[in-house]
Amino acid sequence: MLSKSQTPTVEAELSSSLPPTDAKTRVSGFMQQLQTEITQGLTDLDGVGKFQEDCWERTEGGGGRSRVMREGRIFEQAGVNFSEVWGDHLPPSILTQRPEAAGHRFYATGTSLVLHPRNPYVPTIHLNFRYFEAGPVWWFGGGVDLTPYYPFAEDAAYFHQTLKHTCDQHHPNYYPVFKLWCDEYFYLKHRGETRGIGGLFLDYQDGQGALYRGPNPNGSAAAYSQQVGVPAPRSWENLFAFIQDSGRTFLTAYVPIVQRRQGMEYGDRERSFQLYRRGRYVEFNLVYDRGTIFGLQTNGRTESILMSLPPLVRWEYGYQPEPNSPEAELYEIFLKPQNWSEWTQKHT
Amino acid sequence: MLSKSQTPTVEAELSSSLPPTDAKTRVSGFMQQLQTEITQGLTDLDGVGKFQEDCWERTEGGGGRSRVMREGRIFEQAGVNFSEVWGDHLPPSILTQRPEAAGHRFYATGTSLVLHPRNPYVPTIHLNFRYFEAGPVWWFGGGVDLTPYYPFAEDAAYFHQTLKHTCDQHHPNYYPVFKLWCDEYFYLKHRGETRGIGGLFLDYQDGQGALYRGPNPNGSAAAYSQQVGVPAPRSWENLFAFIQDSGRTFLTAYVPIVQRRQGMEYGDRERSFQLYRRGRYVEFNLVYDRGTIFGLQTNGRTESILMSLPPLVRWEYGYQPEPNSPEAELYEIFLKPQNWSEWTQKHT
Repeated sequence: MLSKSQTPTVEAELSSSLPPTDAKTRVSGFMQQLQTEITQGLTDLDGVGKFQEDCWERTEGGGGRSRVMREGRIFEQAGVNFSEVWGDHLPPSILTQRPEAAGHRFYATGTSLVLHPRNPYVPTIHLNFRYFEAGPVWWFGGGVDLTPYYPFAEDAAYFHQTLKHTCDQHHPNYYPVFKLWCDEYFYLKHRGETRGIGGLFLDYQDGQGALYRGPNPNGSAAAYSQQVGVPAPRSWENLFAFIQDSGRTFLTAYVPIVQRRQGMEYGDRERSFQLYRRGRYVEFNLVYDRGTIFGLQTNGRTESILMSLPPLVRWEYGYQPEPNSPEAELYEIFLKPQNWSEWTQKHT
Repeated sequence: MLSKSQTPTVEAELSSSLPPTDAKTRVSGFMQQLQTEITQGLTDLDGVGKFQEDCWERTEGGGGRSRVMREGRIFEQAGVNFSEVWGDHLPPSILTQRPEAAGHRFYATGTSLVLHPRNPYVPTIHLNFRYFEAGPVWWFGGGVDLTPYYPFAEDAAYFHQTLKHTCDQHHPNYYPVFKLWCDEYFYLKHRGETRGIGGLFLDYQDGQGALYRGPNPNGSAAAYSQQVGVPAPRSWENLFAFIQDSGRTFLTAYVPIVQRRQGMEYGDRERSFQLYRRGRYVEFNLVYDRGTIFGLQTNGRTESILMSLPPLVRWEYGYQPEPNSPEAELYEIFLKPQNWSEWTQKHT
């Protein structure tokens, strides 16, 4: 029988990338700071609306700090949450993806936001970054994605180029893999539509193995991840630095788009289409979203979890956009995956 | 080794209650007739709105007939669907409850409706009845339940008494078990609320075994079902007759309530509360509803499945009803299980 030191076990492999002893404090501190930087930036941008703060505790362990702006000048509703929770075991939805975490206590912290602007020309945006520890495993996850109601290719290109720039400073394959993963994740199968123009999505990032760790081995994110091969192992510090930069890119990626669109005049037609498209946001969040399901399954604070749902929504049986309209262009171009980071003015 | 005739197998047990050879045709015929009777009744009641009909086919087998009324006098939206589908195998959500159906082709037919009235004093209502065959098994399921926005005890009592009267003509334990099952099923765990005042809910009814066949062995429906014991086996014909009567009770149970409430004056406060409460309907249908999940999992027609979603909905972070208001009474009394069939005027 070989001694333990001669057989590299799963534990030993993982121990090479163990989090520092103050990992939880540092990540949770960053997540709170991110919430504060973003709510400050949005308050300045809006100029009228203020965030209302609610702190809450979770019976099973932990709690959070929810901040909501309602009836602002630009934002009809803006919700920015921080939470830090722990408990005896992760819910089944995560354990299927991370079986090594079974039977272990868990810790999770993160910041998430959804902004619902009033003007239909201003896109809705979502951000979520999160960190988990459970027994022998730890990982980062999250992303940012944009959901326009009206099609502006330059906004989509600017958004993706900004995210790509941040990713490229950390690893050349982050953007291409996490962009494809985002298109795969924010997809409404029952509608045959992406939720919006995507952005970044990542999960189960522990610095080991392939970049794509999603459920679909036959998708283009998996194929691309396999094609570029397994990157050199990255430390906890490397990944945390990447997550911090990605979070801090948020205002840079979004604010200029809001400034460009917020003064555009609109009428009932645009408002009505915006309310209709918000229905897809509801469908995605309640039927597919990992964060929402995790929150509801772990007995999270319902009002904070469902803060992502829009203030006013419309459903319309059998709606079809008028041919050659901006609404039709949204469906034909913007609700399908596109290489937005490579878009240039001359393509129009 | 015993010969087959000496050992009563599961197959032999079930064969005693085999459906007639024309079962599918008869049930599907009834489901279509029920759709027609109900849409006719609602057209007469509304007086202004008309149903628009769409017939559709499903690639994997079968199809349906959807009927939608929009912008009627009473009904802001009324959707009444008939469908009849078949395929290679049932989705996992059903197979966990009915493992005997695994590896067999299935057939399913049913009628379902959701009505969203304009006046907040008129309750929303849902009906669904369905029939399944898959290899050695068959069953009926479905129910009717009422979701008021404003609290009227006499409406709740009338609704439950009407359903009880129909059930009692078939079996004395149907109403008590299926009423408790309904309270259990239409429950929003993340809100700690029932969806409305309930009604009837039943599933996996094949005439054998206990009446309650739900997932919660510790609930009051299971306890009551166990307390009253296993009823004498009932034939396919018995159950089909019960389903027919239950479906046909719909107009009797609902129309008088609409007539009583549709002329009541209301303002922004009531309308706003109605739109807010409609959000719970969306949450229930997208997060918990078996029919919606079955439809989306079996590649059903999305527009018909999601026809149950309200035309206009509101979400509001942290809403709390004013103390001692009608809205508070709804939460305190009507969104908790009550013995509505035993309510009498003197209780007020």
